Amino acid sequence: MSEYDEAIKLTGPDDTGRYTGRLSDDWAIGEAVNGGLIMALAATATASHSHASGGHTDPLTYSGVFLSPGSAGEITAHPQVLRTGRSMTTAQVRTTQQVDGVEVERTRALMTMGDLSRYAEPVLKAEPAPQMPPPEDCPGTEDAPPTPLTSSGFIQRFDIRLDPATLGWALGKPSGKGEMRGWIRLADQRDFDPVSLLLALDSFPPVAFDLGSTGWVPTVEFTGYVRANPAPGWLRMRLSTSTVSGGLLEEDAQIWDSTGRLVAHSRQLASARFPERSDADSVR
Amino acid sequence: MSEYDEAIKLTGPDDTGRYTGRLSDDWAIGEAVNGGLIMALAATATASHSHASGGHTDPLTYSGVFLSPGSAGEITAHPQVLRTGRSMTTAQVRTTQQVDGVEVERTRALMTMGDLSRYAEPVLKAEPAPQMPPPEDCPGTEDAPPTPLTSSGFIQRFDIRLDPATLGWALGKPSGKGEMRGWIRLADQRDFDPVSLLLALDSFPPVAFDLGSTGWVPTVEFTGYVRANPAPGWLRMRLSTSTVSGGLLEEDAQIWDSTGRLVAHSRQLASARFPERSDADSVR
Repeated sequence: MSEYDEAIKLTGPDDTGRYTGRLSDDWAIGEAVNGGLIMALAATATASHSHASGGHTDPLTYSGVFLSPGSAGEITAHPQVLRTGRSMTTAQVRTTQQVDGVEVERTRALMTMGDLSRYAEPVLKAEPAPQMPPPEDCPGTEDAPPTPLTSSGFIQRFDIRLDPATLGWALGKPSGKGEMRGWIRLADQRDFDPVSLLLALDSFPPVAFDLGSTGWVPTVEFTGYVRANPAPGWLRMRLSTSTVSGGLLEEDAQIWDSTGRLVAHSRQLASARFPERSDADSVR
Repeated sequence: MSEYDEAIKLTGPDDTGRYTGRLSDDWAIGEAVNGGLIMALAATATASHSHASGGHTDPLTYSGVFLSPGSAGEITAHPQVLRTGRSMTTAQVRTTQQVDGVEVERTRALMTMGDLSRYAEPVLKAEPAPQMPPPEDCPGTEDAPPTPLTSSGFIQRFDIRLDPATLGWALGKPSGKGEMRGWIRLADQRDFDPVSLLLALDSFPPVAFDLGSTGWVPTVEFTGYVRANPAPGWLRMRLSTSTVSGGLLEEDAQIWDSTGRLVAHSRQLASARFPERSDADSVR
């Protein structure tokens, strides 16, 4: 079983419709288990619940908030179907952990699910994948100076190769453009599927790093969209932002599969700290 | 009192924390009361509830689903604060109407609220407003051939002027680019505020019309972001889409105020029907 399948393994539902999984520090970044992994776990529980009630199972949209950081140990997912239509099912899903005997909510999200094979054709408009050097010519985590961040469990679960053209920030020279491109696959080369694309959307370093931010970049809200079943192999990913004001920025992620098809995209509002700049340094 | 303030007027909270308002066909489009108005009403109730519990009141993000179409008559908003932090408050809000004595859910959303004045400066990156002719040189609804749609109450509540460069679809010649630009203000010239920007984000004709769609374009999921307090006066708005596949498209809206500042943006996944095309007509 792949590392990812092990990480989202669930038991349930119990007689109240809840599913139980286990978070591990193998997926932690800094002090917290990565929110993208919790999204994938919650989406898996929701798909199972929807399937059991005759609904749809492919994630189309996931809009969520992170209420408190997840930690290693048992986690419970509480999916609830709100509406089942002919072509889509709408649901809510909460995740909780017990802390000192008290149930603490980690995430809450609204999801719509459908059948992605229905939306494959015709393609009336498409965004081409960005051009970049092949993975073997793009630096990976092992090429970065070791820091507490790069030794996090989460970082080890992926093989991420960043386009050298957008890597200045890692050398102390952020471009100020607010853009990052690169390749991604799981370290054990398990191929991505619609649910794990949600995890992939939140797996790159924050685009705020390309604007000079160096610290923690907490997510205010995250909405991910899965647009197609991904083909096997490397994914190409691009992060960008266009409005950065008062420490708030939107981070847009786009993912293309190995055939060049855009298969997922997301937007998150995030809060970042930026070093003080003189007007002359403005990158507006 | 402006038409908009009348439309979002609420009584409450009652002793269970619920707020009550009244929907009117003055804000209907086709058979349903516009979802953007219900968003603004729900956001108003949530801000009031948050304020009463010591939380923040400016909408930063609103991520929601539309579960059933709203109709004229009483509507109830059920806000619930999930987390109050130092700089932001996270909440959920549901709206319901009674149908034949049964409570039917209309919308459900997750919101984050904060204090927009905190996020005004510094601006590290900004997207300039699109260039277009002044409002007096852009056609309005009164210039369009009357249809059941243009005579909808909702359409009458706004003064919308579309850039002639993106108006081909209204003359039966959609450009296929998937873009629309124009000016917007409320018909009675009440200025926009952070909450009513959520309504504005959902007020233009669907961008799918510029790709040849002519029918109803239901929203699968909507996430709106308010980035700044809008200055008084006309707003400039731009709609675009980049991936249209199997009848699903994302519609991105951006709004700039009269000073040229981007004050709100949104993305919705929508479902549209497109006429059959031969390969030669493909706009891919």
